[in-house]
Amino acid sequence: MQVTNEVIDKGVTERRFELEASGEVVPGILWRPEHADGPTPLVLLGHGGTQDKRAVNILGLARRFVRHLGYSAVAIDAPLHGERVADEAAAQAARDDLARRVTGPAGHDSAPRVSSQAQRAFAEAGRAAADWAATLDHLEDAGGILDERVGYWGLSMGTMFGLPFVASEPRVRAAVLGLAGVAGVPGAEDRVAAARSLSVPVLFVVQWDDQLMTRQSCLDLFDAIGSADKAMHVFPGGHIDTPLYERDAYEAFFERHLGR
Amino acid sequence: MQVTNEVIDKGVTERRFELEASGEVVPGILWRPEHADGPTPLVLLGHGGTQDKRAVNILGLARRFVRHLGYSAVAIDAPLHGERVADEAAAQAARDDLARRVTGPAGHDSAPRVSSQAQRAFAEAGRAAADWAATLDHLEDAGGILDERVGYWGLSMGTMFGLPFVASEPRVRAAVLGLAGVAGVPGAEDRVAAARSLSVPVLFVVQWDDQLMTRQSCLDLFDAIGSADKAMHVFPGGHIDTPLYERDAYEAFFERHLGR
Repeated sequence: MQVTNEVIDKGVTERRFELEASGEVVPGILWRPEHADGPTPLVLLGHGGTQDKRAVNILGLARRFVRHLGYSAVAIDAPLHGERVADEAAAQAARDDLARRVTGPAGHDSAPRVSSQAQRAFAEAGRAAADWAATLDHLEDAGGILDERVGYWGLSMGTMFGLPFVASEPRVRAAVLGLAGVAGVPGAEDRVAAARSLSVPVLFVVQWDDQLMTRQSCLDLFDAIGSADKAMHVFPGGHIDTPLYERDAYEAFFERHLGR
Repeated sequence: MQVTNEVIDKGVTERRFELEASGEVVPGILWRPEHADGPTPLVLLGHGGTQDKRAVNILGLARRFVRHLGYSAVAIDAPLHGERVADEAAAQAARDDLARRVTGPAGHDSAPRVSSQAQRAFAEAGRAAADWAATLDHLEDAGGILDERVGYWGLSMGTMFGLPFVASEPRVRAAVLGLAGVAGVPGAEDRVAAARSLSVPVLFVVQWDDQLMTRQSCLDLFDAIGSADKAMHVFPGGHIDTPLYERDAYEAFFERHLGR
């Protein structure tokens, strides 16, 4: 893990790094309280499709966790995203396609509602899980950063990737997931199997009129989650309409399970 | 409104009162911060079926709202409940029946799952709404207790009664409702109509394996709520299994809408 840059902004140290995983350079950012001198609770932030490690909502959450809770947070570019984009024209087309879909009306059919590009990205779930595991390995090796208080936050593609990752990674003790369903994109059986195998506390977010998936598909995925301690928060509106105040619920959730 | 008793416990003044409404004496309790010397936000607490104005969860919520938020809270005995029970043997039978149902397994059929006694109680929704309106009138007349910051909290029968009340009462600015559905007991059309007419922020609680109603029935009632600002919190388990930590969400909800 090589630190490439570090800046401090209003009490938050933002440290850019690169590490090798899946035979590729994976760039990431670690946010820490400026004066942290040892391990803190850590939340892994899995960004959404066409986003990257420093998307507005990722950066906002990272700063909140640091400033409000004294936590650390880490984000990495997912496969085919951020600095790992190989085909910029295709990435731009994917961004345009997604922007068009999530500002359109919701339907309730069960037809696939994501682009073939998004489906190609979702197929990288195995690599994404390996990247996250490698990130935890590197942070552990660095020393003084993390202990057993590790959580995962990731919606939409952050759940398509995060669900199998959290299911396979015993170091993650609590997870915020959602904006994802069982049907609509390939891999439904794998998602259900991963969901069933979960045992850590889960907060699952659903948008009632999500343009990218059906209600039933979301309810089915929540239903499949094996954790005894799980909750589903449902809001009206489309894929990008989760109210900002829900960030308070993310904080309360992690504080309840990772302490302070 | 006649004050019948007043005690102070750890910063909370608990004032018992009686008022006349629906041609009957309605007994209630007002909880206030011990040193309050003017209006505070006020939450009306609608107890569940077979409970009363000082049921354990009602008392617990009242004390939390006072101690954590500096709010006031008020509860009254619903029609046919608490000190308004006329037939104690029938009331005991209703308690026994409910206890048996909510500790049994959940089904997913659409058959009625509540007793005929509960159905008789639910038929008193009109009287319950009149009692609550009279309570607000009396508290307003008393002066120095409430202003425009009024919320309603009531689950299960507290929603069967609270839904038409909140829909008809412009003084209520935010409501926590839930553990109630559209189908299963008479009055489905009225409930849906009341839900559709709501415009205040609503937090709606659902138990995923509620023994007293189907999932779909709950989802339909949430769906019907007309408020633009609404959220549904779903938890695993039966009718009485809502996790205690959800009380933090009630507090956050009222603090967001009624201030502090």
